[in-house]
Amino acid sequence: MGKVICVGLGPGDPELMSVRADRLVRQATHVAYFRKKGRVGQARKIVERILARDVREYPMEYPMTTEIHFSDPEYNRALADFYDAWALRLIEIAATCDVIVLCEGDPFFYGSFMHLHWRLKGRAEVEVVPGITGMSGCWTATGQPITWGDDALAVLMATLPEKELEARARGSDALVVMKIGRNLPKLRRALAAAGRLDAAWLVERGTMAGQTVQRLADASDNTPYFAIVVVHGQGRRP
Amino acid sequence: MGKVICVGLGPGDPELMSVRADRLVRQATHVAYFRKKGRVGQARKIVERILARDVREYPMEYPMTTEIHFSDPEYNRALADFYDAWALRLIEIAATCDVIVLCEGDPFFYGSFMHLHWRLKGRAEVEVVPGITGMSGCWTATGQPITWGDDALAVLMATLPEKELEARARGSDALVVMKIGRNLPKLRRALAAAGRLDAAWLVERGTMAGQTVQRLADASDNTPYFAIVVVHGQGRRP
Repeated sequence: MGKVICVGLGPGDPELMSVRADRLVRQATHVAYFRKKGRVGQARKIVERILARDVREYPMEYPMTTEIHFSDPEYNRALADFYDAWALRLIEIAATCDVIVLCEGDPFFYGSFMHLHWRLKGRAEVEVVPGITGMSGCWTATGQPITWGDDALAVLMATLPEKELEARARGSDALVVMKIGRNLPKLRRALAAAGRLDAAWLVERGTMAGQTVQRLADASDNTPYFAIVVVHGQGRRP
Repeated sequence: MGKVICVGLGPGDPELMSVRADRLVRQATHVAYFRKKGRVGQARKIVERILARDVREYPMEYPMTTEIHFSDPEYNRALADFYDAWALRLIEIAATCDVIVLCEGDPFFYGSFMHLHWRLKGRAEVEVVPGITGMSGCWTATGQPITWGDDALAVLMATLPEKELEARARGSDALVVMKIGRNLPKLRRALAAAGRLDAAWLVERGTMAGQTVQRLADASDNTPYFAIVVVHGQGRRP
């Protein structure tokens, strides 16, 4: 009997994997990972240099990414079928040996694995190894602490409505905004309305090759998938 | 010429250090770390098994912990002197060789190193290695994802006033509360008033020996320093 072990790989730099993640990936005989159709996949890229040559790979290709809007019921149904099918496949593999699921960042923090996790409950033994979040990699890249003293930090998705982004940006000391993509112009307007735009930084490809850090006010509207906006807290400091 | 390298050690389990942190600590000839007077220090404990035998150690002992309240100007002055003195000492060491500063969790996320960091600016070369946060270790310990879909996450310090804790707990999907200690009864009242107490979990010593996970409603008022409260988001899931 094996286990399904989901391993958080951290923000992108392979040296930022945990010692346990590094060991589990090197010893893996079966690895599964999410990716867009026709792409290598970021998780797979991170472990490129440490995977065993004869490892069996299971790329879990999302049925769609942006062709259908997430408010469309069809989007939900197609994704549910996808997760159902892969949960079943992982249970089959784990019946005879361990299978490592590779995940960027920290699996229980906005990660796709959670959609497999609750489907596996009671049907396979599951273990989750936390990882360094993408946001930790990004605020470290800015060279400034994200929070001081008793600062409140809000983590927001840029997919939220503009007015909600504005209100939440107004109400918190420090901010992290993820899922930027085509929401960048909306996010910029919301932060400007909240008086936080001048303090906002856009980090693209944090800890990876091609990392950039720039003021959000100066950034173009085109940003890669790996992009996070950071507004540092300014709390108490002795 | 050396550098001051601050290394995030993660939530407590030595295997959750990053590969880079592990390498830097093993190769270190000079290490500094914060601790309370008369204690080993949590950061020092994490690296116990990998430090070189002949490493030079610099325990940075806080001048006080709870004898003076942080609203007292004397508290601020004593801490400022302490950080000033240690910044100077690290600059002296880094003039000839690298010195590794050991920090629990992620250094730029509510870590003490930030008070040295801004004092070192322009006076020594500084590098920061991110780590897995204590909160990632704790929500992984609960066996449930902290956030789903577009959930907003608020990270709060239990030192905030009760009414503010209540309002912020009401206004966010997922919650993490740190710096619990003697604020536990206040936090419990605030979460009850916000209708979130039944969904709140208290994780003590997350990822360390003696880890416990229990409902906050059932927990005693006495909690160790390493304690975090978690309320999971319940957002969209296909």
